[in-house]
Formats: sequence, structure tokens, C-alpha cells
Amino acid sequence: MRSPSSFDEISGNINAPKGFQSSGVAAHIKKSGNKDLALIFSEKPCHVAGTFTVNLLKAAPVVFDLQRIRKGGILGVVFNSGNANACTGAQGLQNTATMSQWATEATTHGRSKRKDFLVCSTGRIGIQLPMDKVHHGIKEAARTLSQKGTSAAEAIMTTDTFAKQIAVRIRLGGKEVRIGGIAKGAGMIQPGMSAKGKFPALHATMLCAITTDAVLSQPVLQDCLNRAVAQSFNRITVDGDMSTNDTVLLLANGQAHHRPIKRGSRDLQRFQEALNHVALNLALMIVKDGEGISKVVTLEVKGAATAAEAENAIRAIGNSTLVKCSWCGEDPNWGRIWDAIGYSGTRFNSSTFSIEYNGILLVKNGLQMSTNLKKVHKIIRRPSFSIACDLGLGKHRAILYTTDLTEKYVELNKGE
Amino acid sequence: MRSPSSFDEISGNINAPKGFQSSGVAAHIKKSGNKDLALIFSEKPCHVAGTFTVNLLKAAPVVFDLQRIRKGGILGVVFNSGNANACTGAQGLQNTATMSQWATEATTHGRSKRKDFLVCSTGRIGIQLPMDKVHHGIKEAARTLSQKGTSAAEAIMTTDTFAKQIAVRIRLGGKEVRIGGIAKGAGMIQPGMSAKGKFPALHATMLCAITTDAVLSQPVLQDCLNRAVAQSFNRITVDGDMSTNDTVLLLANGQAHHRPIKRGSRDLQRFQEALNHVALNLALMIVKDGEGISKVVTLEVKGAATAAEAENAIRAIGNSTLVKCSWCGEDPNWGRIWDAIGYSGTRFNSSTFSIEYNGILLVKNGLQMSTNLKKVHKIIRRPSFSIACDLGLGKHRAILYTTDLTEKYVELNKGE
Repeated sequence: MRSPSSFDEISGNINAPKGFQSSGVAAHIKKSGNKDLALIFSEKPCHVAGTFTVNLLKAAPVVFDLQRIRKGGILGVVFNSGNANACTGAQGLQNTATMSQWATEATTHGRSKRKDFLVCSTGRIGIQLPMDKVHHGIKEAARTLSQKGTSAAEAIMTTDTFAKQIAVRIRLGGKEVRIGGIAKGAGMIQPGMSAKGKFPALHATMLCAITTDAVLSQPVLQDCLNRAVAQSFNRITVDGDMSTNDTVLLLANGQAHHRPIKRGSRDLQRFQEALNHVALNLALMIVKDGEGISKVVTLEVKGAATAAEAENAIRAIGNSTLVKCSWCGEDPNWGRIWDAIGYSGTRFNSSTFSIEYNGILLVKNGLQMSTNLKKVHKIIRRPSFSIACDLGLGKHRAILYTTDLTEKYVELNKGE
Repeated sequence: MRSPSSFDEISGNINAPKGFQSSGVAAHIKKSGNKDLALIFSEKPCHVAGTFTVNLLKAAPVVFDLQRIRKGGILGVVFNSGNANACTGAQGLQNTATMSQWATEATTHGRSKRKDFLVCSTGRIGIQLPMDKVHHGIKEAARTLSQKGTSAAEAIMTTDTFAKQIAVRIRLGGKEVRIGGIAKGAGMIQPGMSAKGKFPALHATMLCAITTDAVLSQPVLQDCLNRAVAQSFNRITVDGDMSTNDTVLLLANGQAHHRPIKRGSRDLQRFQEALNHVALNLALMIVKDGEGISKVVTLEVKGAATAAEAENAIRAIGNSTLVKCSWCGEDPNWGRIWDAIGYSGTRFNSSTFSIEYNGILLVKNGLQMSTNLKKVHKIIRRPSFSIACDLGLGKHRAILYTTDLTEKYVELNKGE
């Protein structure tokens, strides 16, 4: 996954690139009293690229960001957890705009009344934000902005059990460039995002913000983010439910002051590799922290006749209730995988079909290799393993990072 | 649901129509020692109509029945539970044909070596049938054929907790005509069946056999079954997984000796009503007995712009892991329903959207009616309730009988 020469992982997160600060506070939107409001702030205005849920029902902050992002000159992002501000009508949209304005005012010490912050919300759907609490929270978060710490990553957590963050550095044009990111999962996870929030593109709320001090034009930045999301966040599923709020934002403030990265350049390729690494690692942290899960499964479908068929088959397998229950039970019940491919509508020939677990063949030409059953039983007792299904019909393939379905998941999602 | 004048429910099942007998025995295909082999036998050859899973991967008995049914002259059905005979290659197909032949031989006391029995299997996928046990079982079942009892309904059960059966009588052309049925669920339940086992038609193995002594041609019988299945078995889901084995068979032996029911006749309409009742009641028993479930939900989507959009929306809601968990938790988390409609791709306008629980409005024009929240909380504590989502955009509607998702379901499906 890691290209050894082009970049290094470093400690830190969204604060790692020059000119960025962040904070996270308890604004008491959550009943628990845990942190629930975060700011990312850049000293200089940023180019921003974004990808947004293709769910036709978009939460208010997604609607706001889709419009605001086009105008440029963005100073940061304000996040809240505990309330998704989705299904909240005109009032919800107004509240998002107000959050943006409050965040701008608070971080510019009242010098600007513009709406220069993007907004991300996650939590319960259908309830209006407690705006007085939000206002206090934003002011406190602005006062506590810092180039250190993990409080922003903590404040965007909902059912997440750990804060998700990463940072890398890379040399471009003789300068050190940094990329840092934070993300949250952990249920309603099958992101499908595109730059315009429209199909096609496939399916938690998952939220992610990535910062960089690299110098790129907005269109190049957006292309980079689209590629990074296509191989990371859009390739994960926990429960097959695509949220109204899924958002990935990439903020570039240009403070590394190298020559702008141009299309077709080797520097762009290296920036892309580093960004892909950041995005994939954050996406995999979301899968690993999926609600109540006990297994992480890297699923591959290959040998499909078309790309669409590979995609249909892999989504059917990765979201099948029964397949996921069998993983939870450490039962190599490959018949359920077979069944899911069948109802996905993907063409299939049993005489060319094989399934491997961590490279061990369990099904060959449609029949079980009983001699390998014991080995496969051992493999699926591990906390993570890979399953590759070869349809043997063509050259198209797809990959999906998925999980099992557990009693704990049901318990966690029964109530609020 | 019941038209008071055209038919009456009577006690019994597939034995109720004249000339049918059945039996069920323990052939020890199941490790538990419970009954696992059943026969339905008609003294006279039958016209048979069938609907079969549209899963592209069909179990051996489905492949066999699809071909055999065309030739007519069928004497009955042999069922086994405990083994699905799916993903079993050429050997599996051979075993199905052998089961048909053995059942014919045993019930005709060796007079016929033809393959005049249809075959239905349900259970684990990917394992060959223990044919010696099956042979013994078929012979014992043939010896114990009877016009009484529920042993056939019991022998087709897998994770079912009760035997599913029904019978009705109706007067056609001055004669009493009877229809009886048995069925089994209870997991891998989202049947999608068509007469040729091909798309389109939507998505347990669920198995069902219905018998009648009515006199109809095979094409008319098939039309009746298609209509009955469209409003019953094809409108249920427990877990969204469509089986390789789903089958509904309708056997008509003509022993009521009335004038044949013709297309366009009032008699046909009354026969259809009675058949619909039988099919819907058996389908609802499957839902009620869904693996580990605690709630039965009658879901309706109305006001959709197109029939396809109504269908997409209702399948997304009825199979959403998160929606189903919230029902289990008795939490009216309608935001998850909203979210599922959104990712189904169905057009939606929040300002015309409403949701009712047992007729009580919880969401009107996209906003929660908080005054009704307490009433709705009471409703969803019941073991069954209805939810109607009105998109307010058109006149198309769909209905789906579905269930919650429980910890018990996961537990039941972790292993074999």
C-alpha cells in the first residue's frame, strides 16, 4: 500500500501542514457531554475540493457546502457531532449558514461577517440544532485553536471508539509538503460520493477533512480528491446504508510555497500517491472501527465480464446480511457468497468459479476443495482476512473493504 | 384481505383437495433427527404451474423442475430439508433426477420408472445429498402417505418454529373445489420468482406447494399462480437475501370434476381470489416466523412518480439494516427511512413527504409532528404495525411485508 520513496508518515493530523490550526470542544449538543464541536482554521484562504454523498436526500450542510465550495476563499471547516442537521427543512439550511458565519466571525475576531467556513454535521436525523449551544461552542473552539492536539478528531466522533488521524510529508519542488487528515465513522457506512453529489458514484455518516499546504489550482485539487476517494472511501461498507451527510473535504492553503503542481507532472503523481495513502488509511480506520464489528474483510471480485458486474457482485456480497453473519460466526459458508453473486444479476459460470481465503483455494471450478477446509477455518478466525472470488469470465475486478454483522451492531443501533 | 362470500377457510393443508396424499419422515439428512423428507402424491397426474427464484445461480432441483414442468403428467413433489442441493455441479443435478425417479417408483409400487415427481430442496448450500439416506426416506414416506396430518409441512421446516399450512373451499360450477398449501421460511427470505426463473420479477429459501382439485388448463393455472405470487411471496422480505432455491408449485389434479375454468369467467375470478388468499396467508406466516424477528411491519410507499421508483424505495427501506435495527429497538427513527429512500435513487421532495404509523402522521411535509410522537412510540411497541410513506409526487405505490433485525437473527445465522 505504501510507496517507500515518495512520502513518509509523520505524527499529527490536520495541524501538520503549515498554517492550519484546529480545536474541539464540548458544546453539549451530545447528551453525553463528550466533545461535539470542532474547527479547522487556515491562516490563509484555501482552495477546497469536496466529495459529497450521492444520496438524493442531502443534509443541510451538504447542500450548503456544495454551493459554497464553488466560490473559493474558504478559511476552514466547522463540525458538529450529535445532530446530523438532516431532514430539517428551511430552518436547517438557515442554521448551517449561521454556523458558517459564526465560525468566520469567531476566527477572524469579528473582522469578517462572511460565510467563509464549510460545515459538516453528523448524528441523529430529523432534529433541529440547539443553536445557542452551537454558538457558545464555536466561540470556545475559536479561542482554543491550536497547532497541536487531537481534539478536533475527538469532537467529530459519534459511535467511533478511537480518533482517526494521519499525516504524511513529501518533498515537492525542493520544499517539504504535508498532508494531514481526520475522519469519523462508524455506522450508516457505505459512502458513495462525487464532486457534485450526484450519481454515478457509489454509496455512516462518514466525515473526513484533509488539509495540505501544497500549491495546486482548485481543479487539479478536485481531480486529486476524486481519485483518492474512488480508491478509499467509496470502496468501504459496514452496513450498506448510505448517509445523507457523507463528506470529504480537502483544503489546500499553499503555504509550502513551492511551484504550483501541474497536470501531468511527476510531482502531481507523487502528491496523488501520498493523498491516496492518507485517504485509504482513514477509510480503513473507519472499517476497522465499524459499529460492533469483529472482522475486517478485504473482498475482491475478479474475472467479471464487465466492470458493472464486478461492482454489482461485490456490493451484493459485502452487504449480504447472511454472508456477514457467517463471518461473525467464523463459518466459511461460501454458499452464501455464491447465492449473493447469483441475485446480484452478475453473469456466472459455476464451472469457472473459484473462491480463495488469504490465497487458499476453498472452491475451484464451482466445487468445494474439502482438503483446504481446515486451513480456511483457521483463516476466518483471524480479525481480518481477504476473500477473492474469481468468476473466470473476463478481466474486470473490484475491491471492497467490509465487515461482519454482529449482535453488538444490532444492539448499538436499536435506539438513539 | 378476505372476500366473505367466495371462499371459506377449512382445516387441513395439501391433503384437503380430493385425490392428494402426503407424508413426512426423518431421513436423517438433518443432524437433529427431525423430519426432513416429504412427499405430496396425487392419485391422478396433475397440471403443474411453478414460479422459481430469479437468482441466476439456481439449485439443482430448480434447474430440474424448470425443465420437467413443461412436459406435464406430474404425480407429485418430493421435498428434502437440511441440504439445499445448490452449488453441487453435475452430481447435484443427477441426484435430483434420481430423487424424482425414486419417488415415482416408490409411489407407483415400482410400476413406473419415469421421473414424474418434481423436487424441492432446502438447507445448507454446497454439500452433496446423502443419497442412501434419501432413498430410505423416500421409501418410508411412500409407505406412510396419508390424507391426514401435518407431517409434510413439518418435514420441510428448517429454522421455522411452526408448520405453515392453510386450506380453503369454494364452489365452482356447482361443485366443491378445494385449495390447500404448505410453506417454509425462515431465513434468506426475499423471494423473487417468475414462471421461467428469469428476471424481471423481484427477489429463505422459501418453498411452497399448493394443491387443488380444480379443473383448469396448465396455461390458465400458470397465470393464476403468477398473479397469486406477485401479491404474496414476491412482496415479502426478512433479510434481503434471495435464495437459490425459492419455489412455489401449484398442482391441479382435476378431481373436483367441474367444467373447466375458462379465461375471463367469474369462476376464474373466484378461484383467483381463493388462491390469492392461500398464497398471501402462507407468505405472511413466513414473515411472522422470520428468523429471530420481533416485529412484522407492513410497509407501503405511495405517491411515487413511477412504479419502479416506488419499488426501489420500498426495497431500500425494507432491507435497510439500520431501519430494521430501529424497529427492533422500538425507536421511531424515521430519519433512517428518509435516508434509505434517498439512496434508493427514488425522486423525492421533502416538502411533500409524509410518514404515517398505523395511520398516525409522524412526518408531514418533511417535518416531524412532535405532538404525535408519543402515540407513535406506543404503536411501534406492538408486535406488528404498518408504516406508510407518501412521496406526494405521483400515483404509484408498492407494498412490502417485512421484519425487524434482531440480535437473535445474527446469532441464528452465525453458524450452520
